[in-house]
Amino acid sequence: MKIIEPRTLPGFMELMPDDQILFNKMKRIIEDTYQSYGFWPLDTPVIEHSDVLLAKAGGETEKQIYRFNKGDTDLSLRFDLTVPLAKYVAKNSNELVFPFKRYQIGKVYRGERPQKGRFREFYQCDIDVIGDNELSLLYDAEIPSIIYDVFNKLNIGRFKIRINNRKVLNGFFESLNIGEYYTEILRIIDKIDKIGYDLTKQYLYEILNNEELVNRIMNFISINGTNSDKINELNNLNIDNENFKSGVNELEIVIQNMMQMGIPEEYFEVDLTIARGLDYYTGTVYETILVDYPQIGSVCSGGRFDNLASYYTDKKLPGVGISIGLTRLFYQLKEANIIGNSDNGGADVIILPFGISDYSLLYKVANELRQNNYSTLIDYTDSKFKNKMKYADRYHVKYAILIGEDEINGNYLTLKNMEQRTQIQIKFEDLINELKNN
Amino acid sequence: MKIIEPRTLPGFMELMPDDQILFNKMKRIIEDTYQSYGFWPLDTPVIEHSDVLLAKAGGETEKQIYRFNKGDTDLSLRFDLTVPLAKYVAKNSNELVFPFKRYQIGKVYRGERPQKGRFREFYQCDIDVIGDNELSLLYDAEIPSIIYDVFNKLNIGRFKIRINNRKVLNGFFESLNIGEYYTEILRIIDKIDKIGYDLTKQYLYEILNNEELVNRIMNFISINGTNSDKINELNNLNIDNENFKSGVNELEIVIQNMMQMGIPEEYFEVDLTIARGLDYYTGTVYETILVDYPQIGSVCSGGRFDNLASYYTDKKLPGVGISIGLTRLFYQLKEANIIGNSDNGGADVIILPFGISDYSLLYKVANELRQNNYSTLIDYTDSKFKNKMKYADRYHVKYAILIGEDEINGNYLTLKNMEQRTQIQIKFEDLINELKNN
Repeated sequence: MKIIEPRTLPGFMELMPDDQILFNKMKRIIEDTYQSYGFWPLDTPVIEHSDVLLAKAGGETEKQIYRFNKGDTDLSLRFDLTVPLAKYVAKNSNELVFPFKRYQIGKVYRGERPQKGRFREFYQCDIDVIGDNELSLLYDAEIPSIIYDVFNKLNIGRFKIRINNRKVLNGFFESLNIGEYYTEILRIIDKIDKIGYDLTKQYLYEILNNEELVNRIMNFISINGTNSDKINELNNLNIDNENFKSGVNELEIVIQNMMQMGIPEEYFEVDLTIARGLDYYTGTVYETILVDYPQIGSVCSGGRFDNLASYYTDKKLPGVGISIGLTRLFYQLKEANIIGNSDNGGADVIILPFGISDYSLLYKVANELRQNNYSTLIDYTDSKFKNKMKYADRYHVKYAILIGEDEINGNYLTLKNMEQRTQIQIKFEDLINELKNN
Repeated sequence: MKIIEPRTLPGFMELMPDDQILFNKMKRIIEDTYQSYGFWPLDTPVIEHSDVLLAKAGGETEKQIYRFNKGDTDLSLRFDLTVPLAKYVAKNSNELVFPFKRYQIGKVYRGERPQKGRFREFYQCDIDVIGDNELSLLYDAEIPSIIYDVFNKLNIGRFKIRINNRKVLNGFFESLNIGEYYTEILRIIDKIDKIGYDLTKQYLYEILNNEELVNRIMNFISINGTNSDKINELNNLNIDNENFKSGVNELEIVIQNMMQMGIPEEYFEVDLTIARGLDYYTGTVYETILVDYPQIGSVCSGGRFDNLASYYTDKKLPGVGISIGLTRLFYQLKEANIIGNSDNGGADVIILPFGISDYSLLYKVANELRQNNYSTLIDYTDSKFKNKMKYADRYHVKYAILIGEDEINGNYLTLKNMEQRTQIQIKFEDLINELKNN
């Protein structure tokens, strides 16, 4: 028979079991945390009508789409979870309750040029709150508080949520009367983390050719101090622009409420250089960095938008949301050795029979363990002791229970602590207590 | 702006929030149960190289594939989770530990003609155990014991796991010397549930044109009684065929071990009419029916196969596994009103502020509730009391906590039981105990 080489497409993550367990643990922490804030789950199809999915797309995004025909139908794979949300809300707006809070965790597809740390299939973990015509600003504070909760529970080191407001940026640049250069300038200051202060200043000068303007911009984006200090500084600029004033006010309320929610100040900061997507966001914007690994870039981003679904409905649907790119995050955490894999196993306990044919006692022990939430593996192979121990080690089990003729006749179990390589004899009735006390 | 109609492809399930919560609850029960038996999680890409994915396919399956080119690459969407498993095991056989136990829960794609209850995108929930060259028969007993555990926990009514062994069928028909009609006959008796006893007999007669042979076949598939009775009857047939004897012996061991595992006999039965896929399975085969809804057909099927990945490797990889088609099952359960949706909500508690601007107390209450695993929604809208109550009802929350000026000044909370429409005043410190005692 002709053998076909079993291979996986480049840019598609396929993990070995230990890593998959770690990945799923992170996914579940995210899901459980999203749920604990009263967000509904959503699960939209991976495939959509191309005209629906690409209503808004264009340029780079459209080139990356997996698009094809099946029969006469023009289909595309989703490239994010926001467009399917927009479709869903527009389609079902009469039946949904607003503000509609949903989370969705699922795979999306982008045929990017393959490179290190970039994936063509990757998980996004999104939460969004969508309002019907209006949406309280306090959701802009709730979203980062959920992210704080998630990253705390993920336990992957120090992190910081950076917050800005597009109205502050828009208002500030409006007040400088440099509208035509606005987009270009925003792109430059959004990259200050990568290119540094001096290069930013140089690029701005090349565009504006006006030292005073450049200085005002550099002063603006260099405002520092505590979050309250920054808000005060912004107010002290005395900029007479409604957008600006409204943005600073929003930023202040968001920051205040985050503090009241109990988020320690070292975990979030006003950062006036953050702009995010140029067309989409209209108010609050977020990025999240791992403090000890800034080179990873933002691991969680989002913001406030005026209108979710203008391509599908006349209804005005403002919203605020954020997304964690879990596949990329996981890859980066592994690369940086922030997460390992040594203590992650597929089972808590393994039961090993030796030279017996009646497995009744094994089954009784396994049922008891599983009822007490110990995931339990029975080894049905007839391999030798050494190989059974190897098998147990590959599963990283903490305990092995050995059952042979001696145990059955003596009415006891041999419980082996796989880490300490010690073993005791124990009665069936005492097993669960023994495990619980260790 | 041109409005595009927001629509979802036919044959693609997209649930409303209440149903999605129910669906996810079922998915999680399946996942947690699979894990509790020490199965590793696996998550392979949805897209694969077409030559890899279609190594074995042909006929109907191949026509249904979503296949397309991206650049120069010929790609296909997976149509089951078994082929990706075969690829994965063949690819990583040197790094995996055998017997390799894995579960995978994911979406698969088949461009079937759309019809009621058939989906083009659907979840499969698979478990398989793969051996390296050999695999103990006891795994054939473990697999249905896991299915028993899953369906028990799903709590969707009485069910029965039907078990057969292909060697018993093969051996029996070999002993009749009707090899050339074997496939055709198997197809007919596999459908006896649908077409009935008389029509089965008639069809068999049309093929064999031999009353004695037909009677022997009908007697064989009509063997009844307890599982032990059936095994005894099979042995009493005194059929001198190695395949048959070996099959009956395997069936007996599987049945015995399932009993020892504690599965009540009303939940499983030897059924000699079950054949399943004609080429794939080589030993034990399973089907599962809902006893009160036999018309739904098998909701969980699988069996033993000799060789998982002969298309990708020379290694012999025998295995046994089973699959739950969750999307179809969920649809059928809803259609038959076996599951409803009234008590499924997106949150346990809602906190409703009234006429206050300082939300500190709300946040304190919400944090306390979430730390005690109550998923908690804060209503940030400034809508009227009636609308807030409606919002709470749509979330099916059990409790609402009302906080206004009176509560803040009086240092208490108003706790409203949403089912009984009663309310009490309670101190913050007593809140969790009050909820726990209700």
